[in-house]
Amino acid sequence: MITYNFDNAQGPMYLHMYKCIKNDILSGKLKPKEKLPSKRAFARNNGISIITIQNAYEQLISEGYVYTLPKKGYYVADLDKMQGVAVDAKVDYDIKIPVKEEFECDLSSNRVNPDNFPFSIWTRISRNVMANRKEELMQISPTAGVMELREAIADHLKSFRGMLVDPNQIIIGSGTEYLYSLIVQLLGRDKKYVIENPGYKKLADVYSKQEIEYRYAELDDNGITYRALAGSGADVAHICPNHHFPTGITMPASRRYEVLSWANEKDGRYIIEDDYDSEFRVTGKPIPPLFSIDACEKVIYMNTFSKSLSPTIRISYMILPVHLANLFYKNMSFYSCTVSNFEQYTLAGFIAQGYLEKHINRMRLYYTKQRRRLMEIIERSDLRDVCTIKENDSGLHFLISLDTKRPDKEIEKRLAAKGIKIKALSDYYFTDEGSKQHLFIINYSNLDESKIRKTLKDIKKEL
Amino acid sequence: MITYNFDNAQGPMYLHMYKCIKNDILSGKLKPKEKLPSKRAFARNNGISIITIQNAYEQLISEGYVYTLPKKGYYVADLDKMQGVAVDAKVDYDIKIPVKEEFECDLSSNRVNPDNFPFSIWTRISRNVMANRKEELMQISPTAGVMELREAIADHLKSFRGMLVDPNQIIIGSGTEYLYSLIVQLLGRDKKYVIENPGYKKLADVYSKQEIEYRYAELDDNGITYRALAGSGADVAHICPNHHFPTGITMPASRRYEVLSWANEKDGRYIIEDDYDSEFRVTGKPIPPLFSIDACEKVIYMNTFSKSLSPTIRISYMILPVHLANLFYKNMSFYSCTVSNFEQYTLAGFIAQGYLEKHINRMRLYYTKQRRRLMEIIERSDLRDVCTIKENDSGLHFLISLDTKRPDKEIEKRLAAKGIKIKALSDYYFTDEGSKQHLFIINYSNLDESKIRKTLKDIKKEL
Repeated sequence: MITYNFDNAQGPMYLHMYKCIKNDILSGKLKPKEKLPSKRAFARNNGISIITIQNAYEQLISEGYVYTLPKKGYYVADLDKMQGVAVDAKVDYDIKIPVKEEFECDLSSNRVNPDNFPFSIWTRISRNVMANRKEELMQISPTAGVMELREAIADHLKSFRGMLVDPNQIIIGSGTEYLYSLIVQLLGRDKKYVIENPGYKKLADVYSKQEIEYRYAELDDNGITYRALAGSGADVAHICPNHHFPTGITMPASRRYEVLSWANEKDGRYIIEDDYDSEFRVTGKPIPPLFSIDACEKVIYMNTFSKSLSPTIRISYMILPVHLANLFYKNMSFYSCTVSNFEQYTLAGFIAQGYLEKHINRMRLYYTKQRRRLMEIIERSDLRDVCTIKENDSGLHFLISLDTKRPDKEIEKRLAAKGIKIKALSDYYFTDEGSKQHLFIINYSNLDESKIRKTLKDIKKEL
Repeated sequence: MITYNFDNAQGPMYLHMYKCIKNDILSGKLKPKEKLPSKRAFARNNGISIITIQNAYEQLISEGYVYTLPKKGYYVADLDKMQGVAVDAKVDYDIKIPVKEEFECDLSSNRVNPDNFPFSIWTRISRNVMANRKEELMQISPTAGVMELREAIADHLKSFRGMLVDPNQIIIGSGTEYLYSLIVQLLGRDKKYVIENPGYKKLADVYSKQEIEYRYAELDDNGITYRALAGSGADVAHICPNHHFPTGITMPASRRYEVLSWANEKDGRYIIEDDYDSEFRVTGKPIPPLFSIDACEKVIYMNTFSKSLSPTIRISYMILPVHLANLFYKNMSFYSCTVSNFEQYTLAGFIAQGYLEKHINRMRLYYTKQRRRLMEIIERSDLRDVCTIKENDSGLHFLISLDTKRPDKEIEKRLAAKGIKIKALSDYYFTDEGSKQHLFIINYSNLDESKIRKTLKDIKKEL
């Protein structure tokens, strides 16, 4: 029978007891699966109370050193099965992280230029929020987001886009991908979706991973067609009518009414209007979104601050038609809002104090200059003989058509070998089409001018 | 034929043209569906170039004022269908927001006390991050979160919980609810889930909304049983072995091995170990989680900073077994991380500089005092004759058993009428059980002591 010395015991008796037994287990004095004395016997033997030994046993059990078998007693656990407890062991796991290749010049990335983020203003507002809004910062946000931010967004949309929105229609979330998943839950998983071909490949990834049925619909020069929508058999069309990526198509008004008429033909049909980066259409005026000409609650509008501010601040929003907003509040209010209060209040201040509009205007000017500059450089380079710039109205990129006989994929590969990342329009087709024109995408939002001339030379060489 | 005066035109000609036509449409001079002149005729009549009128028409089209019919021409759109464009109209939508009742004393809320948030340290670290980490702040975070935060969490888990984790196993997300949805996508929607009864009701909400098949499993005094797991026919058990809510059960080691043996019996079985608020077990030592004694990659560990820091900062994480981490990186790397870089780096600094452990220790002490104080008040009040405190090991609450013949629901209702919100344990059962004991939950994490005595008197009166 084990006995321990309690003369030098410090603190509670059961803790001393627990340490003694644990040491004996760790040292191997007590062997795995060895039966420990009953509480009664142990207590009698050591001259302590049954409660004390019971507490010690319970602590050992809860830490995994000891286990019980019903009606049999207490046993020493097998420490080899508790590898995690031994904190000094070395971790050597074989996890493969997808490696992102680094390129000398990346024409495929539409990342915003970090130098343009309004750090000083953001820092100041954020500091003010933390100093003066402590109580609100600690109050749990409604599922749809804090009201102050939703009001600021509604005001911004009114002055900037001529959109009339009740702040309660606005749902804040940490990224559009997250909001897509809320829409899937809101409309129900039996809906069939249709996405644009060509289009934003991530949409297909998201719907695939959600195991949602989706199809592709072809575009003509004005965007998705009524015919393609009707032919798809889908219930929900996820489209970018204001700034289609990557073609840059802006859907004209007449087509908008056609698309809305498709949605109105049947109950349960909806349009997700993804307004990704329309703030930066560099030519023409901003156009009113589908949401604004929808009279029948068919359009869910989505936008994000990823482009207008930074993709590393994860705040997006969707605007639900009234009946869907009611459905959302009824069925999905149990969800927590996914954006931190700290950033919700900071962004609310940033918008309400007029800094967002200023920033967008500044960035628009900046991008217009970048765009013009890059086009000039192309037009003055040797590439101009084999390259036609396809002006388009929108976004942070334009297209060039290259005069080549090589397949798009081969050109991409040859240029990648020279440290240049470029994507063809055909990469954004989900089908085998679109590669005859040899259209390539030129993102200029974060381009290093010093590398452009060499890049253009390299492109010409590899055609 | 319309003609306009160009004498006072300022800026580009097409813009003047566009404004003239738009005014005529808005004023009603040009009627809905009225055919506009062809570009050629219009140009000739006004003595301007075809390009100018084409640009004007295109702007009108893109703004929805004009539409085209193929091979027919240009028509005036119906403005009544464009209500959103008229920015001065009044929005009067009928959106019903669920109203949250306000209570004088809320024993049901386990919100943390805002006074305890370490504002000055958080502000300082956040300011440093914004001043000195501009480049990292603008770099897009890996899907799993920025490495600095994941390393800080891995270190914290090692020193605080004795857990050995590769930072690449850690996936950061904006809340556990979001992470649940990632798990559903990772494991596939054909998996059947089992949740604890009683348990955290939100889990049922989340799985319902995701349209995932789930069942309930009964608990005994040691938590979920092998028998209940085996009988459920489920593949994935979502459990809280370290601090079950609301019973407070801590699963003993022997039961842990039983639960793991269930998972190991069949390929594709997993355990989600939700470690919600185990940092605040106020009695006993923290116990090693299931994840640490799992030798066969069966356990997904989840935790959040909602309890340890604030529920209004939306940062949670899960730790995937190696083969699931690989599956995650392979199939789900297209997702953006849902937490802002600004807060990821701030939290990383907060943890790495030792403030999280300090804060947890301080809060533990604070909650222990709160708990002891509240129990003393109850034991000295008149309520003690009809009330037994059920000590439990965990979390920010304890249970009291009330001596009453009224149903739990009736007691809740009567107390609500007096401004007291209290929840019975039976509310957390998904079945009709558990109401015989009249167990009620007392959350003390954010309780106003001045209201306690009156509350206890009211409870006694309404039994």
